[in-house]
Amino acid sequence: MKIAEELNPLPRLLMGPGPINVDPRVLRAMSMPLLGQFDPQFTAYMNDTMGLVREIFQTKNHWAFLVNGTARAGIEAALVSLIEPGDRVLVPIFGRFGHLLHEIAARCGAEVTTLETEWGTVFDPSVIEDAIKKHKPKLVACVHGDTSTTMAQPLAEIGAACRRHDVLLYVDATATLGGVDFPVDRWQIDIATAGLQKCLSGPPGSAPITFNERAERAILNRKHVEAGIRPAGYVAPNGQRIASNYFDLAMLMDYWSEARLNHHTESATMLYGARECARIVLQEGLASVFARHTQASAAMVAGLQAMNLKLFGDLKHKMQNVTGIYIPDGVDGEAVRSSMLDDFGIEIGSSFGPLKGRIWRIGTMGYNCRKQNVLITLGALEVVLRRAGFNCRAGAGVDAAFAAYEATPARTAIAS
Amino acid sequence: MKIAEELNPLPRLLMGPGPINVDPRVLRAMSMPLLGQFDPQFTAYMNDTMGLVREIFQTKNHWAFLVNGTARAGIEAALVSLIEPGDRVLVPIFGRFGHLLHEIAARCGAEVTTLETEWGTVFDPSVIEDAIKKHKPKLVACVHGDTSTTMAQPLAEIGAACRRHDVLLYVDATATLGGVDFPVDRWQIDIATAGLQKCLSGPPGSAPITFNERAERAILNRKHVEAGIRPAGYVAPNGQRIASNYFDLAMLMDYWSEARLNHHTESATMLYGARECARIVLQEGLASVFARHTQASAAMVAGLQAMNLKLFGDLKHKMQNVTGIYIPDGVDGEAVRSSMLDDFGIEIGSSFGPLKGRIWRIGTMGYNCRKQNVLITLGALEVVLRRAGFNCRAGAGVDAAFAAYEATPARTAIAS
Repeated sequence: MKIAEELNPLPRLLMGPGPINVDPRVLRAMSMPLLGQFDPQFTAYMNDTMGLVREIFQTKNHWAFLVNGTARAGIEAALVSLIEPGDRVLVPIFGRFGHLLHEIAARCGAEVTTLETEWGTVFDPSVIEDAIKKHKPKLVACVHGDTSTTMAQPLAEIGAACRRHDVLLYVDATATLGGVDFPVDRWQIDIATAGLQKCLSGPPGSAPITFNERAERAILNRKHVEAGIRPAGYVAPNGQRIASNYFDLAMLMDYWSEARLNHHTESATMLYGARECARIVLQEGLASVFARHTQASAAMVAGLQAMNLKLFGDLKHKMQNVTGIYIPDGVDGEAVRSSMLDDFGIEIGSSFGPLKGRIWRIGTMGYNCRKQNVLITLGALEVVLRRAGFNCRAGAGVDAAFAAYEATPARTAIAS
Repeated sequence: MKIAEELNPLPRLLMGPGPINVDPRVLRAMSMPLLGQFDPQFTAYMNDTMGLVREIFQTKNHWAFLVNGTARAGIEAALVSLIEPGDRVLVPIFGRFGHLLHEIAARCGAEVTTLETEWGTVFDPSVIEDAIKKHKPKLVACVHGDTSTTMAQPLAEIGAACRRHDVLLYVDATATLGGVDFPVDRWQIDIATAGLQKCLSGPPGSAPITFNERAERAILNRKHVEAGIRPAGYVAPNGQRIASNYFDLAMLMDYWSEARLNHHTESATMLYGARECARIVLQEGLASVFARHTQASAAMVAGLQAMNLKLFGDLKHKMQNVTGIYIPDGVDGEAVRSSMLDDFGIEIGSSFGPLKGRIWRIGTMGYNCRKQNVLITLGALEVVLRRAGFNCRAGAGVDAAFAAYEATPARTAIAS
């Protein structure tokens, strides 16, 4: 067998809906030498990470740590740890990742009720509250920003509605955490998860999670310690055992607490990366980070519209870090994406399901969310579209984005 | 909030049962820039990785890829994808990780029958075959090397026994793959998983897996495509839907095949690392790698015995990459480990359950499996033990290990 060659990827500017280019500081942190998982230095890094994860989720929750897997692993850990077979779960679906929540909840044995709205729109909070009243779920599971449609569901009133009816609220913040405001405590979210590969500027493979005492009580009622490491006198509680060992949040709590009860072997390199992702965001400051994303989104929108492109969906609820664009009639969407990649080294996204072949998606997030990338991407797209026969004035997109940047100065120097 | 400081871990030589020091080549590969998951460069790296994983498992199986999580994630993916609720599963337990297989299989809804043997011993294959005849399981799930006891179960005859009785065989090779011979096809293993952080010299967080057509058939009978990405005309099969979405091997097959059906977002940085781990082992050559581990194990054993230490368990079946040592009477095992770590920067392991406080475990695996580390570790342990009042002659351990290395020359230059 010929052994595969050394890695040597061509440089790419990843302007799709994620993953994006990893901040070099994160890669540098990930190149640090490994420590044993119970080395006091390492457990101190774990504790640091808990503190940093709390801050990016804007929460005072004690529990804030990492699930060792991609964003989807975080979702499954939250749902499988909360949902007992037969539990009623309400899932408002406004894109592909709502379907995923439905799918995972169903595999957990939930009786799922879904609400659906046309892709490109979001729910009025009253619709969700009405459904809560009608179906009386144990849990509402909702996506914050669904990159498949580029829409962000307003959540500020959903948490309060859940409290009024004694329902738990889970939110998937994979696509927004660290780039768009996501105040877990203020919005009364009981449990939330995310990933690193969007606004947090890290690689996929680690899922930040946080949950409050309401969620903790539900989880601990199902706690079950594995036979190989049970302490003397161990008695199992009343709730049904969590169906997954790997995603059992009760066991992860013991691993991340001072008990340090062995579970998996923490993915130390990914933890180094996650810790640095959070440090980068917090050093810039959440308010500045959010302003930088809003500014780039406005510039990208201005540029695309100046190129005669039509944007997808309800722009009032567009995510501040992803923009959907209708593929113009007569233009081959995949050919445009290929030319962007092959000729300019720039990746932009297509979409899923009903939007497959209908829209492109451009991300402006995390490390890549900066003026130079907005301008370069617009300039390249314009060239590719003109060569594909689409009618737009040379320079129109870049000029409009430049003007938008000048009209809304960045909050801090770092934002440009 | 004061933001946590920059990562700056003190150097450690990790001579416990894993994780071990990551090969710098792996860290370098992991520092490469990210690619989009469907970039042709990236899918080519995925395909490379499949080929490399096949080689390290010594298999011609088509299916050989990575589960995005730690070794435990690989175990759960294998078991949850194969076991339908009510299936009979036989688990031979000879240490902590056998209990883990029991635990995970039980959470999958299996009717589990366990065999237990005293920690420090392994099973005669005939005992396992007798249990197969008696209990007629669908699946036998067994650990190859259980680091908790340092024992390696002989597997060569188990696969054949499983075929005779039409039973599937799963093996957890986390602690041995890439350091100790593990020929999946020759041993007729249907499905096997591992991790990177032992003999493969990588960080925890990616789980190589391989399975053959027998396992594939069982998995595909349960295939269920999620609603958000179903093709037109999709019909679900007869088997019970796999209880986990994240660990659904049928979906992972679609993701790793040319269909490239989106599932998780591949943890690209970990894939870069896993790919390099496999390249390193294959460039050295499996036979040389195994010989290097055997040689280091023999030298470590000689050194420890020359220090008047008593080794744990049935040495005929000791893993070639981990050695268990009884903590001598009157010596505080944890104080010795702390002195090794604090005074010499060397980590050695304790153990679990019935062996907690009774043995230490020293690993000689992967990148760390080299003469210098065997000699340095023995020299340091000797000093710490003498200072703790234990009676051993200064230099005895290092001299004996040196002599053992001279008595069994390495197969290749790289091995020293």
